[in-house]
Amino acid sequence: MSSTLPTLDDVGAAAARLEGVAHRTPVVTGRTLNERVGAAVFLKAECFQRTGSFKFRGAYNAIASLTDAERSRGVATYSSGNHAQAVALAAALHGIRSVILMPEDAPSLKVEATAGYGAEIVTYDRYAEQRTALGEQLANERGMTLIPPFDHWDVIAGQGTAALELFEDAGPLDLLVVCVGGGGLISGCATVAKAQRRPVEVIGVEPAAGDDVRRSLVEGHIVEIPTPRTIADGQQTTAPSERTFAVMRERVDDIVLVTDDEIIAAMRFVFERMNLVLEPSGASALAAILAGHIDVAGKRVGVTLSGGNVGIDRFVELMSA
Amino acid sequence: MSSTLPTLDDVGAAAARLEGVAHRTPVVTGRTLNERVGAAVFLKAECFQRTGSFKFRGAYNAIASLTDAERSRGVATYSSGNHAQAVALAAALHGIRSVILMPEDAPSLKVEATAGYGAEIVTYDRYAEQRTALGEQLANERGMTLIPPFDHWDVIAGQGTAALELFEDAGPLDLLVVCVGGGGLISGCATVAKAQRRPVEVIGVEPAAGDDVRRSLVEGHIVEIPTPRTIADGQQTTAPSERTFAVMRERVDDIVLVTDDEIIAAMRFVFERMNLVLEPSGASALAAILAGHIDVAGKRVGVTLSGGNVGIDRFVELMSA
Repeated sequence: MSSTLPTLDDVGAAAARLEGVAHRTPVVTGRTLNERVGAAVFLKAECFQRTGSFKFRGAYNAIASLTDAERSRGVATYSSGNHAQAVALAAALHGIRSVILMPEDAPSLKVEATAGYGAEIVTYDRYAEQRTALGEQLANERGMTLIPPFDHWDVIAGQGTAALELFEDAGPLDLLVVCVGGGGLISGCATVAKAQRRPVEVIGVEPAAGDDVRRSLVEGHIVEIPTPRTIADGQQTTAPSERTFAVMRERVDDIVLVTDDEIIAAMRFVFERMNLVLEPSGASALAAILAGHIDVAGKRVGVTLSGGNVGIDRFVELMSA
Repeated sequence: MSSTLPTLDDVGAAAARLEGVAHRTPVVTGRTLNERVGAAVFLKAECFQRTGSFKFRGAYNAIASLTDAERSRGVATYSSGNHAQAVALAAALHGIRSVILMPEDAPSLKVEATAGYGAEIVTYDRYAEQRTALGEQLANERGMTLIPPFDHWDVIAGQGTAALELFEDAGPLDLLVVCVGGGGLISGCATVAKAQRRPVEVIGVEPAAGDDVRRSLVEGHIVEIPTPRTIADGQQTTAPSERTFAVMRERVDDIVLVTDDEIIAAMRFVFERMNLVLEPSGASALAAILAGHIDVAGKRVGVTLSGGNVGIDRFVELMSA
């Protein structure tokens, strides 16, 4: 299996496709943060990526990698929101149609933004229906190519470009901490991290209610869980995919868990001390560090802030809870 | 008078002092914003400057420009918050003492941050007492050098480095829109703008309740107003200073006004669409554009997002109003 895993070259090829299209997001640092956790922390602020999350990288890379014939028929996907927006914009930039299967309870900001990029939206019940099967059916019916949110090598390679930029801008790191939903981001980023000259530990962070990846890695096979109830709507995945599981078990050192309260505390911290807006899923990696779940003392630590798509009303609700 | 105004060289000298100390803040762009206003907008995100606002630039430049003897006696200032934090950190970085006169009703986040940098804080009633006189008295009593928030050439030159970076990163601009409190930021930025090869229009933005600079420029002399009641606590100045007035009347083309509601709408827009946290004063320049008060159609427009220091509780309160 491991001979088929993506390589640093695959991520480099994705970076070339994204050049001038994706934003090179800033690496944010702060004295208050460093003092609080006793480390040199480098935050890769993907909340400033196009569409507000890292997902644009993988979606664009996957669509750009299609043959002209495939691409011309349009693309379909399923997503709780960030991958939906990413596919919608990447399709629009290629001048092709997109249709997106979204859960009925997806945040309205994400649904509106996806529609705003010109995508057609079809809804489903995330607690009752299997989105993977529905998505495949939808793509088949429309004769479109399915761009899944993480079970796709070009998507994974695209997400890895975030880490490529982080290492270029921050310099050597001892530790890379990455938010984990289906594992696409961490699979791409770990591919980059484990190809560095100096050893880099890679730790993923899941919401405590949705520990499918942690359990899968501990048990050595893919474990599926019921759709988790967590504020981190981008991390409500029920299982890693074959591809992300294969990469993670080779290249990810550990998975730690954070509670919803710890995520809210991290959102609050970055809002007040760094003037950044993060959605719950986007704050989970930093939450693990602020909550003391990861030993960072004295280390150079890269952290993904994976997305910032949270509406004001939802934000106010979370902060008032 | 105009022969004594600061020059591009003064700003360049400030930039050299700030090199490796101040953050080179990102220039943020967004398709949604550009489409909404019909212009190419380049946001200079000083909310990511050290201490959360552009004020660090001027404060550090002024302290770095003191003689060793002056500096060793420590520095004093008066400020509603952002200049306070800036002086406190700049003093700490130079290893000297600072004492700051702050209004009793300054936002608690700003007071706490200032104290956190090691400054001594003295409070006063901003609606009853004259901060300039109190600040001078405080500096005299302590034998410290007063670093006023804007009536100081080194402070003005330091603030101008924000525009220097903006022109370097964004390329030529037709229009530069700047938040105006006492006029330090716009004086420095206009000095840079008017030294560009291509003509650049410079427009300042004040809260409607506090139009002291607009009235001063219209009437041709410094007009003092009562302390304005506005949510933009960084723009509650009562008059421009001699120095900023002298620069602005030579180099600023117009001042436009925004209401508190327009400021809130801009804070909301950048939160939801760009994942940035701005304080009211920091959002005023963008608010003028979003509200249609400035003709930006088809232009390349630079905008200062001058600060982001707003606590969660205050933010929630403003968004719920």
